[in-house]
Amino acid sequence: MREIGVGLLGFGTIGAGVVAGLRKNGDLIAERVKARLVLRGIADIDLDRDRGVAADPALLTRDAAGVIRDPAIDIIVELIGGARIAGDFIRQSLEAGKPVVTANKALLAEQGEEIFGLAERANTDLYFEGSVGGTIPVIKAIREGLVANRIEAITGILNGTCNYILTRMDRQGMPFDAALQDAQARGYAEAEPSLDVDGRDTAHKAVLLASLACGSVVPMSAASIEGIRAITQEDIRNALEIEHRIKLLAFIAPRDREMEVRVHPTLVPLSSLLASVHDVFNAVQVKGDLSGETLYYGCGAGRDPTAGAVIADVVDIARNIVAGCHRRVPAVSVKPRDMTFLRIEETDNRYYVRVPLASGRNLAQKVRALLAARGVPVASVERKRGGGAAEPSAIAITETVKEKTLNAALAELSARDWVRAPVARIRFQT
Amino acid sequence: MREIGVGLLGFGTIGAGVVAGLRKNGDLIAERVKARLVLRGIADIDLDRDRGVAADPALLTRDAAGVIRDPAIDIIVELIGGARIAGDFIRQSLEAGKPVVTANKALLAEQGEEIFGLAERANTDLYFEGSVGGTIPVIKAIREGLVANRIEAITGILNGTCNYILTRMDRQGMPFDAALQDAQARGYAEAEPSLDVDGRDTAHKAVLLASLACGSVVPMSAASIEGIRAITQEDIRNALEIEHRIKLLAFIAPRDREMEVRVHPTLVPLSSLLASVHDVFNAVQVKGDLSGETLYYGCGAGRDPTAGAVIADVVDIARNIVAGCHRRVPAVSVKPRDMTFLRIEETDNRYYVRVPLASGRNLAQKVRALLAARGVPVASVERKRGGGAAEPSAIAITETVKEKTLNAALAELSARDWVRAPVARIRFQT
Repeated sequence: MREIGVGLLGFGTIGAGVVAGLRKNGDLIAERVKARLVLRGIADIDLDRDRGVAADPALLTRDAAGVIRDPAIDIIVELIGGARIAGDFIRQSLEAGKPVVTANKALLAEQGEEIFGLAERANTDLYFEGSVGGTIPVIKAIREGLVANRIEAITGILNGTCNYILTRMDRQGMPFDAALQDAQARGYAEAEPSLDVDGRDTAHKAVLLASLACGSVVPMSAASIEGIRAITQEDIRNALEIEHRIKLLAFIAPRDREMEVRVHPTLVPLSSLLASVHDVFNAVQVKGDLSGETLYYGCGAGRDPTAGAVIADVVDIARNIVAGCHRRVPAVSVKPRDMTFLRIEETDNRYYVRVPLASGRNLAQKVRALLAARGVPVASVERKRGGGAAEPSAIAITETVKEKTLNAALAELSARDWVRAPVARIRFQT
Repeated sequence: MREIGVGLLGFGTIGAGVVAGLRKNGDLIAERVKARLVLRGIADIDLDRDRGVAADPALLTRDAAGVIRDPAIDIIVELIGGARIAGDFIRQSLEAGKPVVTANKALLAEQGEEIFGLAERANTDLYFEGSVGGTIPVIKAIREGLVANRIEAITGILNGTCNYILTRMDRQGMPFDAALQDAQARGYAEAEPSLDVDGRDTAHKAVLLASLACGSVVPMSAASIEGIRAITQEDIRNALEIEHRIKLLAFIAPRDREMEVRVHPTLVPLSSLLASVHDVFNAVQVKGDLSGETLYYGCGAGRDPTAGAVIADVVDIARNIVAGCHRRVPAVSVKPRDMTFLRIEETDNRYYVRVPLASGRNLAQKVRALLAARGVPVASVERKRGGGAAEPSAIAITETVKEKTLNAALAELSARDWVRAPVARIRFQT
């Protein structure tokens, strides 16, 4: 049986998963591909650490460039992470005409123009299923399964860490800080958690999905990003009272010449499948003009699930090699597109608004009056002193209003002496 | 730009959807494929009926064999349905070495050995995404996205008609007959609804998924099939009381040398995403040894959603043609496999048992005693006279027990003079 040489750059958690997966299911995969995937080099700085998988010591090397150059290696798998070193190796591989599999969303999102352009010019395959949604084959679904559709909207829970934290806040009644610590203790969150909890990791993935939806590179600057640090127990409970859960959602809406790419905490109705996605699971809802709503769900992180997605990409390229073709499904084009990105200030949404009240009379009515006077249509205002919250708040639900109109009204509200802390607002799912 | 000729056999609802979809999104698809899909022949018996889409009259013909022979046609799309005529045309196409796209689950499930064998010998592509789960790209997910996994289980809601009926029974409190009539009035059920409500359509799809999971043709004889006609309002309400919904599920569990393929009404816990799949939507949960649980959700029927899946298959083959390859991802092998199929009588399940009681004292205790005496471990028995049910029943929930042990006990129970009608039982989801 034909053999296809695979070189692995980065022997961390996911890299170890790829080694373990190829070992465990190698025969099965060979039968499905009509070729055997053979690991012929593993490059990492640390050659000594025990990864819990048996790797042939003869394959281990610190010389990544040597792995890339090795003529017996047909496919390069980059799992180093980070932008600088990983970027250099991906560039070297593509320049050498070697197809690349990567799960490096940060690199592809931040330097997409260059990396996708290089793959295009080198006429070489660049696959990245593991970079979005962990094990979920959502990139394949969009590029192939839904290829007949104009993509109208993509809505996703794309960060397992944030979803785990929000699940703990919802189910165990933990405040944000305790839920974050719990996630850190379980290895779901980094010691420095900003990339996850401030929404930037979700935005990396959103930008990749946006690029797939419109067919050419969408820059990070297109995304409006808001994280989950400001979400309180009070918000979680108030949301549940009106039959919603708060989720960190990415929302991508491609239109003819304009596109929205946004990441922010969102009130999701309990009747939506997205509201039932818990813990470190991810889900992506894709709406096509022919398909209508479709949804893809699975584990958004973890060694084996992500390794499964990475190996599937290796198989895709191996099937191309066996069939004697390449770039059968082009990655993302770098052709400039006549497209503007809608700033979130210009979008229309419904909002949940929490106004922390100082003492005083008729304050809920004052909130209603100020919002109405500033052009914000109000559906309801209620004074609440929710369980655990020592001080009262006014909770307002708005009708659809332009965000900049709301922001102006809320800034004014925050400055009132009967408002004891800055006003918070969370958007409803559109 | 290169053109790829497409011939359509069958200008019914889905066929009209394919014509409309290619017209609507032809430019977009051409950009994605780097080739233009050009419809060059549409064969149907009825050339006059208005399908609500504009088709070039010059393309319409009654001569399907002529379409198959046409050297300007590269890909044949079979959407006639039924086994006989459609089977003849598919055979002709494959024998002529022409790749085929079909949504004909009945044909592929009933004659898989022959049709897949023919495609293999002709070394030609045979794609069938539209045959399972409507618009959901679940076949692609299993064959490609999850290719690194050993598939451990597939659980699916695969028939939109049955799911619509069960949704109406659940939400509107309709009895089965009224819900079926409602489905018929809306065009979701046929005048002769047996294929759907007796579970055979679901079994066709289950057998195709089973074949994909184990890599070679699984015959229809492997499937245990039970439909939804016997489900009562009482059952729906009793299930909800214990936080379950009744769904018609297909369940496929491939093991080393043994496989389970079953279709039957099932008690699904409300916490499962499958319990939240309503109306004509379908969902397929696939468990892989690396991926863990994944789920794919979308519209299970309808013109545009199914046409979207069919066009995606045409694109897959077109991409092969453009890239100069074929059978890059083989369909289903006909290589015999050392595999037995587990009969449902030999499986272990937990059960909901409904025993319609005549008048008498202590009958719930008698039910418990008889079940226990016949080796059925009982978790609970309760006498109920649920809303609308004029007569009382005993509702028993069992622990895990072999089905044939339960069946023997229930046959004995049904024969008791204090049991007024045959005992019903529904399996819990495993």
